[in-house]
Amino acid sequence: MTAARDGRRERGSRTREAILARAVAVASEQGLEGLSIGALADDLGMSKSGLFAHFGAKEDLQLATIDTARQMFVDAVIRPVRGTTGLTRLNALADAFVVYLRDRIFPGGCFFAAAATEYDSRPGPVRDAVVANLVAWRGALADAVRQAIEAGELDSGTDPAQLAFAIGSLLSGANADYQLTGDPVVFDIARRSIDQQLALATV
Amino acid sequence: MTAARDGRRERGSRTREAILARAVAVASEQGLEGLSIGALADDLGMSKSGLFAHFGAKEDLQLATIDTARQMFVDAVIRPVRGTTGLTRLNALADAFVVYLRDRIFPGGCFFAAAATEYDSRPGPVRDAVVANLVAWRGALADAVRQAIEAGELDSGTDPAQLAFAIGSLLSGANADYQLTGDPVVFDIARRSIDQQLALATV
Repeated sequence: MTAARDGRRERGSRTREAILARAVAVASEQGLEGLSIGALADDLGMSKSGLFAHFGAKEDLQLATIDTARQMFVDAVIRPVRGTTGLTRLNALADAFVVYLRDRIFPGGCFFAAAATEYDSRPGPVRDAVVANLVAWRGALADAVRQAIEAGELDSGTDPAQLAFAIGSLLSGANADYQLTGDPVVFDIARRSIDQQLALATV
Repeated sequence: MTAARDGRRERGSRTREAILARAVAVASEQGLEGLSIGALADDLGMSKSGLFAHFGAKEDLQLATIDTARQMFVDAVIRPVRGTTGLTRLNALADAFVVYLRDRIFPGGCFFAAAATEYDSRPGPVRDAVVANLVAWRGALADAVRQAIEAGELDSGTDPAQLAFAIGSLLSGANADYQLTGDPVVFDIARRSIDQQLALATV
C-alpha cells in the first residue's frame, strides 16, 4: 500500500469520525429520526455527496451513530469500573452512570433512553440496535448483582433481574428528571433510593 | 340560539373530538413532532382546510392533543382512586398506572413519558405543557405519601419527594420495558420493587 493511499484512508476515517460525533450530538437532542444527511452536511460545511460517500442511506448513518454512542457510553460508564466485581461494581456502575448524566456526555441526556422512546413503536434494524444496547446495560447490572450474591454480599434470595430493573429504572428516572428540571438534586435522590434497594438486599 | 346553529356546533365539537382522538394515537407512536395536519386530514378523510378550521397552527393541535391525553390519563389513573387516601391511595395509584400501561390506553405506551423525551431539549409551550402534566403526576404520588405519613401508615422520616421519585421511576421503567419487550412480567417485577420501597418506609 502506498503512503498516499494510507493518507487518503486516514483523512477519510477522520472525516467519518467528525460526521459521527456531530450526528450523535444532533440525535441526542432531536432524535435519530431527525438525522438528515443534508442538514449534517450543511452543519459540517461538507457537500451532501461527500457525506453520502461515507453513509449511503439514512439507516446506515443511524446505525453508525448508535455504534458511536455505544462506544461513548462504554468509555463513560463501563470502562471506569473495570476490575471491580460484585457489590463494589454495582455501586461503581451506578455512580459512573450518574457522572455520565451530570457531565452531559450527550447534550440531550442518555442517548439510549431517548432512542428507545423514539423507536419503541418502529420495528427494524435501528430499534434492534437500540434494544441490544439496553439489554447489554441491564445485563451488566444483573451480572454484578449475581456476583454480589455469589460473594455473599447480597442476600441469596435476591432476584438479579428485579434488582437490576429497579436500579436501572431509578437511574433512568434521574435522567428524565434532570433533562426536564436541570436540577442535579435528583442525582442525590436517585442515589439514596438505590442505597435503600441495596440495603434491603444486603445480608 | 337556533336549533340549526346548535346542530352545527355539536357536529363541530364531535369532529374536533375525532381529530384529537386520532392525534393522540398518532402522537403516542410517532411523537408530537410527527403530527402533521395534512397526514391527519388524509387519515380522517377530511380536507386539510377543514382541519385547519379547527386548529390554526400545528402548535395549537399539539397543545390540544396534550390536553386530550391529560383527560385520558386522569380517567384511567386518577379517577379510579377517588375517595382513597394515604397508603391505600398510593397503592391504588400504582395499580391503576400498571392497568393504564397493560391496557395500552395509548398505543405507544405512556403518552407523557414519550412526549417528555421528545421535548426535553425543545423549549416552548409544548414542553411546558408536558412538564406541567408530569409535575402533576409526581405531585399526586407525593401527596399520597404525605397523607400516609400523617396517618401514621408510613414512617415520619420518609421523604415524600424521594419516595414519589422512586415509585414514579419504577412505573416509568415498567413502561419502557413493556414498550420494548411486550412482556407483561415487568409489571410484577415493578410491583415487587414498589412493595419493597413501601416496606422500607412502613412503620
